[in-house]
Amino acid sequence: MYATSLGADGALLRPLEPWRAEELLANVDRGREHIGEHIGFADAVTDLASSRALLHAYAERVAADTGRIDGIWLDGTLVGGVLVRTMDVPRGVAEVGCWLEPSAVGKGLVTRAARLMIDWLVAERGIHRVEWCVASENTSSIAVARRLGMTKDGVLRESYPHRGVRKDVEVWSVLAPEWLAAKP
Amino acid sequence: MYATSLGADGALLRPLEPWRAEELLANVDRGREHIGEHIGFADAVTDLASSRALLHAYAERVAADTGRIDGIWLDGTLVGGVLVRTMDVPRGVAEVGCWLEPSAVGKGLVTRAARLMIDWLVAERGIHRVEWCVASENTSSIAVARRLGMTKDGVLRESYPHRGVRKDVEVWSVLAPEWLAAKP
Amino acid sequence: MYATSLGADGALLRPLEPWRAEELLANVDRGREHIGEHIGFADAVTDLASSRALLHAYAERVAADTGRIDGIWLDGTLVGGVLVRTMDVPRGVAEVGCWLEPSAVGKGLVTRAARLMIDWLVAERGIHRVEWCVASENTSSIAVARRLGMTKDGVLRESYPHRGVRKDVEVWSVLAPEWLAAKP
Amino acid sequence: MYATSLGADGALLRPLEPWRAEELLANVDRGREHIGEHIGFADAVTDLASSRALLHAYAERVAADTGRIDGIWLDGTLVGGVLVRTMDVPRGVAEVGCWLEPSAVGKGLVTRAARLMIDWLVAERGIHRVEWCVASENTSSIAVARRLGMTKDGVLRESYPHRGVRKDVEVWSVLAPEWLAAKP
Amino acid sequence: MYATSLGADGALLRPLEPWRAEELLANVDRGREHIGEHIGFADAVTDLASSRALLHAYAERVAADTGRIDGIWLDGTLVGGVLVRTMDVPRGVAEVGCWLEPSAVGKGLVTRAARLMIDWLVAERGIHRVEWCVASENTSSIAVARRLGMTKDGVLRESYPHRGVRKDVEVWSVLAPEWLAAKP
Amino acid sequence: MYATSLGADGALLRPLEPWRAEELLANVDRGREHIGEHIGFADAVTDLASSRALLHAYAERVAADTGRIDGIWLDGTLVGGVLVRTMDVPRGVAEVGCWLEPSAVGKGLVTRAARLMIDWLVAERGIHRVEWCVASENTSSIAVARRLGMTKDGVLRESYPHRGVRKDVEVWSVLAPEWLAAKP
Repeated sequence: MYATSLGADGALLRPLEPWRAEELLANVDRGREHIGEHIGFADAVTDLASSRALLHAYAERVAADTGRIDGIWLDGTLVGGVLVRTMDVPRGVAEVGCWLEPSAVGKGLVTRAARLMIDWLVAERGIHRVEWCVASENTSSIAVARRLGMTKDGVLRESYPHRGVRKDVEVWSVLAPEWLAAKP
Repeated sequence: MYATSLGADGALLRPLEPWRAEELLANVDRGREHIGEHIGFADAVTDLASSRALLHAYAERVAADTGRIDGIWLDGTLVGGVLVRTMDVPRGVAEVGCWLEPSAVGKGLVTRAARLMIDWLVAERGIHRVEWCVASENTSSIAVARRLGMTKDGVLRESYPHRGVRKDVEVWSVLAPEWLAAKP
Repeated sequence: MYATSLGADGALLRPLEPWRAEELLANVDRGREHIGEHIGFADAVTDLASSRALLHAYAERVAADTGRIDGIWLDGTLVGGVLVRTMDVPRGVAEVGCWLEPSAVGKGLVTRAARLMIDWLVAERGIHRVEWCVASENTSSIAVARRLGMTKDGVLRESYPHRGVRKDVEVWSVLAPEWLAAKP
Repeated sequence: MYATSLGADGALLRPLEPWRAEELLANVDRGREHIGEHIGFADAVTDLASSRALLHAYAERVAADTGRIDGIWLDGTLVGGVLVRTMDVPRGVAEVGCWLEPSAVGKGLVTRAARLMIDWLVAERGIHRVEWCVASENTSSIAVARRLGMTKDGVLRESYPHRGVRKDVEVWSVLAPEWLAAKP
Repeated sequence: MYATSLGADGALLRPLEPWRAEELLANVDRGREHIGEHIGFADAVTDLASSRALLHAYAERVAADTGRIDGIWLDGTLVGGVLVRTMDVPRGVAEVGCWLEPSAVGKGLVTRAARLMIDWLVAERGIHRVEWCVASENTSSIAVARRLGMTKDGVLRESYPHRGVRKDVEVWSVLAPEWLAAKP
Repeated sequence: MYATSLGADGALLRPLEPWRAEELLANVDRGREHIGEHIGFADAVTDLASSRALLHAYAERVAADTGRIDGIWLDGTLVGGVLVRTMDVPRGVAEVGCWLEPSAVGKGLVTRAARLMIDWLVAERGIHRVEWCVASENTSSIAVARRLGMTKDGVLRESYPHRGVRKDVEVWSVLAPEWLAAKP
């Protein structure tokens, strides 16, 4: 029922509600290797039940006002998305993340979607600090953080194991005044 | 983050998520007498806590895939909405309802919003039968059912008490093939 | 501990509590084809676990005061029953249903049991409107509704799928004043 | 809907379901001092909410098959009852208790009701050991245990505080073979 | 992080928290036949999942302040333990139990651990009556009750089935004044 | 039942279980201004109910194996404590925190207690990365992080509001190999 344009190429952002579990599974299946290179998202969506469980968990966060998940559609296909993994409204802090299948890489889709999400967090929800946590080796995700005007706050050393190796995690953030000042 | 145009007058349909509880309360407060004339909705939203509880309950239905609620905005103000009170996807049946504050009456807003909702139910969710239940005396709501091309299936006699009197309830419905055939 | 006589043939009505799950399963197993011809009840009781789950769900409705289930015994065997599928005491509405295995058909057992159930709903619980929802093709169940003095309120067109075909559902009802006036 | 005769005086035993909370409160209110002399039951039923909560808790035990509560009616008034406080079917053990308002004392009502309850536990539910726990000073309740053919298994010294003094609790029991052998 | 000495042989008592499920399973596996001779504890711990479930259930009792479980370590190996199966602080009653694998029998470990547990119940938690329930045939456990200065309150006849035979259960107890008077 | 020595001054570390809610409230009441200068802990413990709720929440984390809380006693009085606010065993990360009333400041109690906690996390639970999050202005807590041999990973800018001002939060950490190498 809802879609927000992401630009001239016809890409759309839509709420990713539980009934879309089949689309999400197909999206992750197509990009499993690429999506799973740096993040655990792909490992959490392995069949229809786990896909539905993940979307149900995010719908519960909408109900509790602690998170959300939205999908990016290109030419009618779900190719990735952005999500608010955690949101603490009284504290004014939220963490944003993303995923994308390889065929959709290189078009700036995640940056555009993340801009909409941060706009919503800052302007409509009063969030003061938006975080972006990313493995140090995930250069394309770090490039998104830079394009979003974020600052690197630090590096959480050896913060989680991924496929047998502990990864450093960079914490990037943008504060509401910074975000608003950078708007054209 | 999302809004769907309802027409040339700039009216918008948006998801009515729990964080909008203050807007819903203000909307119901402005239209309490009119909204409560035939339906119990107004009595369920009397303060911020009950407004939040109602929106939380609908967010839980989104998570369970059994209902939803969307608001109508006119000139930046929430003036009413449409909702899927119940939805049984395996059975293919859903019941749609609405509310509107008096200042927004007479513009066809509910009919326009209900059309979008039924489109979504039929085309995206595979619902076969969409119901519209309405007190026999609620002539304006019955007029909406007619405009939506619905058929009266029957009258549930003395079906609920409202302000001291038991009301007859008319059940109107449209089936998916009827809905699709009537599209221009 | 409890049994109410249904008449001179020694038939009895008893609460159908969770510990009777084996009896219910045997009853449904004997009548699976007949019971399942028009209603989904048979499909919900396929083994001991599902039988127990159904009776547990009804016991929870007794606890919440929103429903109940009672069995009909003939010659010491559970042959069917009546149930209050939904009951909304503040609103004054309840829906009654039934099932019966074929060997017990034709003796008026369901009509007798339903009379006791409606007496309880109207006289002891203050229910104003008792509904009986039945597939249009289920002539024997419609005959029960007539014998109970009910009125047909309407036909919910193509209301649920059963074995591949969508069924029309007739809504019959009797109001408390009608019920009391018809008592001998 | 159900009632079992307790004898020629017209006393009846009925399931004490949650919707009877007002009757239970009235019963306890009339007998508060007497009922509360030795047991905590009266202190648990002090207003409509607590009465409903107690009956709801017992309805949940019916659903879980771990207990039940039944009321004694005399001349149309609820005057007391018997209950299965705990029931462990796999282990074959249950504890039975009772309460009675003073106007109904001396008629053997509790003994008659407890007999029906123990019959149900032993004959229908396969319970092997039925317990009756009673304060050593509660001579009338101990007399019931004797009339039921129970044996005193021991005295749990200073087992619970009641109105400032710790009470000894006698444990009486009857085993299934004893119960069946004593039947006329 | 915590350990209390049980004496000169280096035996230790430690909280048995859920993360120790593997140690508990190994302990029960080594002593399965002996531990299971009189009590059901061994039958409740048959694999890692059931071991974790048992420890989780006791951790929930700590949270609810209704019980606890502590392990006995000898030479670095978990060999048994003591537990507060039930604890009703407002009522002032608790039941203590134990288990031990055969290699650790005969050293007085359970008696020493139970002394610490009863000290805690009486001195720190204000428990008035500490119970010890034991099968009549379990002579070694009855010897512990005697060594703890307990009194036999009675015998619950044929109280539970164990491997095909119903067992008598002796109830032993010590009251707080008795316990404190017996301290050296 | 359990206590671990923190050194020659007789200070003790003990599990802070829910039944100690009164002691915790007294501790926080004595140090409310000092404890609340930089952290929200003091604001979460304002009466007996909130004190019990906080300890109950931590006991649930023990049950779920996701955290714990332990108190520091000096001369028989609870003066502060250390806690594992979050613990993700599969991921190998935990966050440790502390609080202390002013009379106990300057004795190194928190450093000593945190050492025991980190030893447990690293040696017994296999945690790889232990975090210490602290407001940039909280110099005494930062001094503890230094004494524990931790490294500053970064500064989360304006990370939470405290008494009207958004505070920067420093993230300090020590990795398991670092911790083990630094042991004498």
